[in-house]
Amino acid sequence: MKMSIVVRKDLAMGKGKIAAQVAHAAVDCAMRKSSKVDQWVSEGQKKVVVWAKDENELISLVTKAKSMGVRVCEIRDAGRTQLDPDTLTCAAFGPDEEEIIDKITGGLKLL
Amino acid sequence: MKMSIVVRKDLAMGKGKIAAQVAHAAVDCAMRKSSKVDQWVSEGQKKVVVWAKDENELISLVTKAKSMGVRVCEIRDAGRTQLDPDTLTCAAFGPDEEEIIDKITGGLKLL
Repeated sequence: MKMSIVVRKDLAMGKGKIAAQVAHAAVDCAMRKSSKVDQWVSEGQKKVVVWAKDENELISLVTKAKSMGVRVCEIRDAGRTQLDPDTLTCAAFGPDEEEIIDKITGGLKLL
Repeated sequence: MKMSIVVRKDLAMGKGKIAAQVAHAAVDCAMRKSSKVDQWVSEGQKKVVVWAKDENELISLVTKAKSMGVRVCEIRDAGRTQLDPDTLTCAAFGPDEEEIIDKITGGLKLL
């Protein structure tokens, strides 16, 4: 099982901001009880963090995941620091079977 | 309620590596059921990500948190990329009352 977190590359976020947003997305997806989450945790909660080039690319991945029935957790920033309010910053996908996650985010580059 | 995640500044980790380690720590601390976690989630899961200068500083914070009864989740890297196996990379503290977390990590700089 794997979780993939996709971060927008077109935003000017520092590494602490990125880490906090990614953690937010990962916690959101991990907190919803399911046997997939349980299995993912028992296997050591594998995660990859990858780039989307902009909001449009991230939204199209979200749409694809939803059409496949894969859990998605989108994060919008409150905008108190660095970003405008309600900016989509990242989204977590899964946890789900590695092959399924790779069909959505497998082509993206690691941060 | 707040969670603080403390990352070692003396390791050569890229921003994707940092984000994945921080997410790992945050998920670990969030997955243990407690009324503090429930309250933290309902309040929007406030997080800060800060630097410790090295392993010794991070270990002393972990020891302090444990002596105060604050939940701590230490992350050690499997060492498949970038780091030696079993390297302590970061730790999450809480979630707990903001004043309590600040007694442990309040003096540290944001990433």
